[in-house]
Amino acid sequence: MKEIIAIIRPNKMTDTKEVLNALGFPAMTANRVMGRGKQKAIIGEVSFEIQKKELLNEEGTMRYIPKRLLSLIVDDEDASLVVEAIMRVNQTGNRGDGKIFVLPVEEAVRVRTKENGIEAIS
Amino acid sequence: MKEIIAIIRPNKMTDTKEVLNALGFPAMTANRVMGRGKQKAIIGEVSFEIQKKELLNEEGTMRYIPKRLLSLIVDDEDASLVVEAIMRVNQTGNRGDGKIFVLPVEEAVRVRTKENGIEAIS
Amino acid sequence: MKEIIAIIRPNKMTDTKEVLNALGFPAMTANRVMGRGKQKAIIGEVSFEIQKKELLNEEGTMRYIPKRLLSLIVDDEDASLVVEAIMRVNQTGNRGDGKIFVLPVEEAVRVRTKENGIEAIS
Repeated sequence: MKEIIAIIRPNKMTDTKEVLNALGFPAMTANRVMGRGKQKAIIGEVSFEIQKKELLNEEGTMRYIPKRLLSLIVDDEDASLVVEAIMRVNQTGNRGDGKIFVLPVEEAVRVRTKENGIEAIS
Repeated sequence: MKEIIAIIRPNKMTDTKEVLNALGFPAMTANRVMGRGKQKAIIGEVSFEIQKKELLNEEGTMRYIPKRLLSLIVDDEDASLVVEAIMRVNQTGNRGDGKIFVLPVEEAVRVRTKENGIEAIS
Repeated sequence: MKEIIAIIRPNKMTDTKEVLNALGFPAMTANRVMGRGKQKAIIGEVSFEIQKKELLNEEGTMRYIPKRLLSLIVDDEDASLVVEAIMRVNQTGNRGDGKIFVLPVEEAVRVRTKENGIEAIS
């Protein structure tokens, strides 16, 4: 099994959850995080005034931007489909589109039924 | 070492922490997340009115439910004990009891002492 | 690739981000978590009154302490440098300095460009 971690724009959460649900992956957790990638400036997302106020701190250095972190556990064979789907929904072509990471998961257990392995996530 | 990630009901946090502490695993982090499993309806947890208001959005589709995410790092040989203990405390038999995942951890370091490996987590 | 997870004091976040940025690792996510290590008492961080009020619950048992969780994905060969840097900035010698964990990451994708692997994180 794999953990798919996607760090995406907050305004892409609904579309991302909908497409994953439609593909048969409704189970996930979501979380608010602050993040930044390699970008040194934000262009096309926020006006300069907002950028100056919200994204730069008093020293004028970069501040972190609200992101959403989605995590879902999938079978090995579903990992590439899930990654592709998240990428499709979140790609705007602008910096800040986010990143997706894939981590190995050794075991999964559904607490209610004690099912484990792929049974726990299907 | 293993990372044990448990996604559980908020009202099970205290009991879960207590049993883990009693078993000798006091070190963990906890976090509020929104989550859902495969369930299409919530039965037995909330009244219909609350469900309608809190769990369904304006389009009537499923909303995410507040959960707690617990994470602790344990020695390989302790992983099954910790998973069992979390399962025991959190199993109500109703949907929404949560899930537990086990991920591999390659290294751990205690910042204060620079101890690493199992020394860092014991 | 590796995921470096650091659980540190909130007042060390700025310094930690600055040193990682200076070393060429600006991309990360940050999150508020509640955590505790093995310590049974907090000494030298808070006065007794604050400790009594904030850290002990009504039964007098330990409560969890606000921490920051930093996560960044780095190339294998950069992992030890990043761990060392985080340790250097966060080591005060007092309990509560935090911990650092290293997890394996199998894949990374930059959503905007579809770059994957090390290209996605460099």
